Amino acid sequence: MYRTHHCNTLGISDVGKKVTLSGWVHKIRDKGFLIWIDLRDHSGVIQLVFDENRTPKSVIEDTKNLGREFVLQIKGIVVERESKNPKIATGEIEVAVLDFKILNQSKTPPFTIENETDGGEKLLMKYRYLDIRRTPVKERLQFRHKVAMAVRNYLSDKGFLEVETPLLIKSTPEGARDFLVPSRTNKGQFYALPQSPQTFKQLLVVGGVDQYFQITKCFRDEDLRADRQPEFTQIDCEMAFVEQEDVMQIFEKMTVYLLKTVKGIALKSFPRMTYKEAIETYGTDKPDIRFDMKFVELNNLAKGRGFKVFDSQEFIVGINVEGGASYSRKQIDELIDWVKQPQVNANGIVWVKYEEDGGAKSSVDKFFTNETLLEWLEKARSKRGDMLLILAGETKKTRTQLSALRMEMAERLGFRNPEVFAPLWVTDFPLLEWNEEDGRFHAVHHPFTSPKPEDINLLDAQPEKVRANAYDLVINGNEIGGGSIRINQNNLQKKMFSLLGFTEKEVQSQFGFLLEAFQYGVPPHGGIAFGFDRLVAILSGSESIRDVIAFPKNNAGRDVMIDSPSFIDAQKLKELHISKIYETNG
Amino acid sequence: MYRTHHCNTLGISDVGKKVTLSGWVHKIRDKGFLIWIDLRDHSGVIQLVFDENRTPKSVIEDTKNLGREFVLQIKGIVVERESKNPKIATGEIEVAVLDFKILNQSKTPPFTIENETDGGEKLLMKYRYLDIRRTPVKERLQFRHKVAMAVRNYLSDKGFLEVETPLLIKSTPEGARDFLVPSRTNKGQFYALPQSPQTFKQLLVVGGVDQYFQITKCFRDEDLRADRQPEFTQIDCEMAFVEQEDVMQIFEKMTVYLLKTVKGIALKSFPRMTYKEAIETYGTDKPDIRFDMKFVELNNLAKGRGFKVFDSQEFIVGINVEGGASYSRKQIDELIDWVKQPQVNANGIVWVKYEEDGGAKSSVDKFFTNETLLEWLEKARSKRGDMLLILAGETKKTRTQLSALRMEMAERLGFRNPEVFAPLWVTDFPLLEWNEEDGRFHAVHHPFTSPKPEDINLLDAQPEKVRANAYDLVINGNEIGGGSIRINQNNLQKKMFSLLGFTEKEVQSQFGFLLEAFQYGVPPHGGIAFGFDRLVAILSGSESIRDVIAFPKNNAGRDVMIDSPSFIDAQKLKELHISKIYETNG
Repeated sequence: MYRTHHCNTLGISDVGKKVTLSGWVHKIRDKGFLIWIDLRDHSGVIQLVFDENRTPKSVIEDTKNLGREFVLQIKGIVVERESKNPKIATGEIEVAVLDFKILNQSKTPPFTIENETDGGEKLLMKYRYLDIRRTPVKERLQFRHKVAMAVRNYLSDKGFLEVETPLLIKSTPEGARDFLVPSRTNKGQFYALPQSPQTFKQLLVVGGVDQYFQITKCFRDEDLRADRQPEFTQIDCEMAFVEQEDVMQIFEKMTVYLLKTVKGIALKSFPRMTYKEAIETYGTDKPDIRFDMKFVELNNLAKGRGFKVFDSQEFIVGINVEGGASYSRKQIDELIDWVKQPQVNANGIVWVKYEEDGGAKSSVDKFFTNETLLEWLEKARSKRGDMLLILAGETKKTRTQLSALRMEMAERLGFRNPEVFAPLWVTDFPLLEWNEEDGRFHAVHHPFTSPKPEDINLLDAQPEKVRANAYDLVINGNEIGGGSIRINQNNLQKKMFSLLGFTEKEVQSQFGFLLEAFQYGVPPHGGIAFGFDRLVAILSGSESIRDVIAFPKNNAGRDVMIDSPSFIDAQKLKELHISKIYETNG
Repeated sequence: MYRTHHCNTLGISDVGKKVTLSGWVHKIRDKGFLIWIDLRDHSGVIQLVFDENRTPKSVIEDTKNLGREFVLQIKGIVVERESKNPKIATGEIEVAVLDFKILNQSKTPPFTIENETDGGEKLLMKYRYLDIRRTPVKERLQFRHKVAMAVRNYLSDKGFLEVETPLLIKSTPEGARDFLVPSRTNKGQFYALPQSPQTFKQLLVVGGVDQYFQITKCFRDEDLRADRQPEFTQIDCEMAFVEQEDVMQIFEKMTVYLLKTVKGIALKSFPRMTYKEAIETYGTDKPDIRFDMKFVELNNLAKGRGFKVFDSQEFIVGINVEGGASYSRKQIDELIDWVKQPQVNANGIVWVKYEEDGGAKSSVDKFFTNETLLEWLEKARSKRGDMLLILAGETKKTRTQLSALRMEMAERLGFRNPEVFAPLWVTDFPLLEWNEEDGRFHAVHHPFTSPKPEDINLLDAQPEKVRANAYDLVINGNEIGGGSIRINQNNLQKKMFSLLGFTEKEVQSQFGFLLEAFQYGVPPHGGIAFGFDRLVAILSGSESIRDVIAFPKNNAGRDVMIDSPSFIDAQKLKELHISKIYETNG
C-alpha cells in the first residue's frame, strides 16, 4: 500500500500519527541542517520537514538527490508547525520525515507547476499532462465531472433514458463537413462520424423511447474558428408527445438545478424574447442581458433633418453609455478606432453627451438643434452624465456592429461579471435563410425543424417569412442550448428537403431510412442539445472551451501533445482501399 | 399538452377521472357495436373502450380508419372493467373514449410489435426503430441505462473522476487494426479512432488525476467474429499509487455493488485463480465456475498400459458428467460427432461409465482392466451413475477441446443458469506470447503492462516465462474486465517495445509522447477496463451484445437500418486528399 492518507486530509487533530504519504515534490527549501519539502498529491500540498532531531542522517543525505516533480513515498509523523501558514489547508501541521523512497525521478519540467505558470500556450498544450498537474486546470476537470454527474442524475430522475447512439454512421451533407472513415470490410465505402445524434434520437422516439438523453461526442470538420474543436461534447435530448413549451419547461428547470447545484446560484424562471425582438433590441440572436444598453432606433428623430450622413443611410441606432459624458476626446477617438477595425467595420460613431447641466453636446451639434439632441437622449432614457453612441448604415450590418460595440462597452464598464448568470430563451427563429453563395435556402436550425403551423401556408410563396418551432437557451451572450419541435409528417419533411435544394435521389440515398421510418406512426416530438464544453466553460468562468477539455486540439485541429494527425503507411491505406492524392504545384 | 397521464400509471383508484392519453394503437378488437383498442405508450398498455352509451357515434365511426401503430391522442373517462385482466398492470380498468385525434398514421409494420415477434433477424435489424417498440427490447435499453448510472454513481462516490479523452487520436499498430480518419486540414495525414483510451488514461495519471474513469466508445477494425461490434463501449478506469490488490479490491466491490443494485443479488468476495491453474483446471483463462466439472489429468493412470491411442498422445484428460452412465449409445455418438465438428476438431471421445452396480463400462474396456478404469473414476471423484469423458492429444489443443465439451455438457445438463452469477479473478497471466505467424512476441495484455518484479530478470533469457501484473474479472465464462499494473519506468517500457519487435523509429513516432511523459515523475499506477456491452448483456441474461445496443451493426460491420457505410462522391474524397483504389480482377 502506497499511502495511509492523502496530503490534504491531515490536520491538527492528526498530530502524533504515523503516516505514509505518496506524491510529487512540489518545492524544496534546503537550509542545510533543515530541509522542507512541499509534497503534492491530487488532494493538495503538505509540508514535510527533515531535521536532525527526528530524521536519520542518511535520510537527510538522500534528499540531495531530489528535484522538483520527483515521485516520493514518505513515512513520517504529523507534528504541529511552529509558524503556521493560514493560506493552505494543512498549514497548521507538517510531517517530520523518518524515511522516504524515490518512486520515480523527474526531469525539470518545462514550466512551473503553479497556479500562475511561466509556460506559454504552446508549451502548456504540448505538455498537457504536466499542465493538468496545476490546481486550476485540475479543478476545471473536477468541475466538468460534477456538472456531467448533475445533468445525468437530474435527467435520469426525471425519467430520461440515456441511450448510446452509434458513432460510425452515414455521411449527410447538411451543416458542416463530416469526418469520414473508410471501411476495410465494405470496399470503397465510408462511415461518417456524427455531427450530432439528430436522426438517431428521432428514431429512438419513433421506437417509443419517451424521453431520451445522451452526453456524447460530436464531430465537425470545419475550418477552425477561434474556440472551436473538431470533436466536442453535447448534451443531446429528445422527448415524445411534447410541444415547445414542454421542452422549454423541463430544460429551464434543469438549468436552474445546475446553477443551484454546481454554483449555488438560485434563479427563477428565465425571460423569453422572440428572435425578432432580440435582433431589434440587441442586434444579435444571443444577447447578453446581464446589462441593459438596449438599442434605441433613431430614424424618426434623426433622418430628414438635413444631416446628409444620416439622411443617406437606411438605419440609425444608438446605445446609452452610463456615465459616458465624462469620456475625453481621446477616449472617444479610441472607441471610433475600435469600431473601424476590420472585425467590426463601421464608418464611425456619432456621440451625444448629456451634460450635467442638462444640455446636450455632440459630434453633430452643427447639424441638429439642442432640442433634437435632447429628444434622442430622452428616447434613450439617458440620464445626465450619460452618453449616447450612434451608428448608421445598412440595417442588418449596423445592428451587428452596434451589438459588438455594446459588448465592448459592457466589458469596459465591468458589466460582464462571470459570476453573474443571465439565462434567456430566444424563440420564433426563422426556419430558413437565403445563402447567397449557394444560391439556395439553408436551414437556420436543421432540416428536421418544424415550421410554426400557422406559417406553413407561407412555405411556397414566402419561405423566408416562415418561423420555426425553434428555441435557443442563451446565457451571458452565449448560445448554450438550441432545440426545436421536429417535423413528424413525411410530406412536410420531403417538402423541407426540397426547399433546401436536395434532389429526390439525394434525399433517398441520404435520408431514405428516416422517411421510411416516418411511415410507421411517428409521435409528435422535439428536443434540445446543449454544448457541454461551452456550458462547463461558462459555469466555471473559463475563457475558452479548451480550458475545460482534458486533451484539446489546437486551432489547426492538431493534438500537439501526441502529434496527431500523422502520416500512415501506403500499405495500411491500401488495406482500406484508398490512396493519398499528391497534388503537385507545377 | 398531449397527455395528462401515462397509460400504465392509471389504476382502480383513478376510476371516474377524465384523462387525456397519447400513444400507439397496439391492438383493435371490433365487435361492431363495441370496439376495444389497446393503447400503448412507453409505460405500458391500457384498454380503451368505444361503446354507444358513452362514445359519440361519429367518434365510433372514425375508428374505422384506424390501424395498428397509428398514433392517437384520446380523451376519456377511467371506468372499472367488467371482466378484469390480471395479466396486465392496468387490467382492472379501461378508458371509455369520448373523443380522439389521429396524431399520425402508420403503415402495417413488417412484423408484430409483441414480446414474441414474427420478424426474423434481418427485418428486426432493418426496422430497429420498430423492434425497439417491443417490450423486451425497450426494457434492455432501460436496464443498460440503469447499469451505467449505477457504475457512474458508485465510482463518483468513491472519488473517481470521469474525464473525456479524445476520439480523434493517433494510429498505433499494436492490437487490432485502427479505423482511420483522413484530415482535410492536415494534408495527407490521418487521425485514428481509439481502440481504448489506454495512453490517455495513463497520461491523466501522470497529470495527477488520482482515480480516473470513463464510460466511452472504443473502435476495432477486426474481421468480425460472432458477437463483436466495430464500435463498443468500455468502462475504462485507472488509479495512481496502487498495487494490483488495490485495483482488484475496488472493482470487486463495484461488481458486488452492481449485482446488488441492478439484480438484487448479494455476493461476497470473489474467488481467485492463477492463469496456470485456470488453464489446468478448466482448459481456458475464462472458466465458467457456476458448475464444477474440473479437468482430471490421466496421463499417469492411462499411459503405458498398452493402449496405443493414449500411449502416442502427449496429454490425456477427462471430465466427470453427473448421471452420464444413463447415456445411450446414440447420445454418446452424438457427443462424439459434436467434438469432431471443425470448430472443436477432436478425434473422438473415450468414455467410462460408473455403473450403478459399482463396475466400470468403457469404450476402451478391451485395453484396460476394470481396476484401472475404476482408478480413473476414483481420481475424477465420479459417483455411481456418472460418466467420465476423456480426450487425448497435444496438451494445449486438448485442453481447449475439453473446455468446449465441458461447456456443452453444462448446457445440456442445465448448469448454465443465466440468473446465477459466478465471478472469478484470474491472475498472473503471462506477459508475452509467441506468435508463429509474425515470428515475434505479442503482448498478452498490452505493451504497457508491467511484468511481475520477481520475473523481470527473465525478460532477456526466457521472456515467455515472465508473468504479468495482470488480472481478469470473469463472470460465467466471459471475460468482463481486464487490467494490469502499468510500467512506469522509461527503460522498462522501451525494453518492452523492443521485445514486441518495434524498431526505435517506430517507437519514437508512435509512442514518443508517452516516453517523453515518462521522464516527468510518473507515479506507480494501474487500472482495468470492463466491456460494458458484455457486462450489460450478461446481467440482463441476453444472448448477444447486440441485444443491449440500441443500433447495432451486423456481422459485416454494416448498419442495415441506415445502410452504412456508403459510397462517397469523388469530389468529397478529393477534399480529404484521398482517392479510392479500384482493383480490377483481370
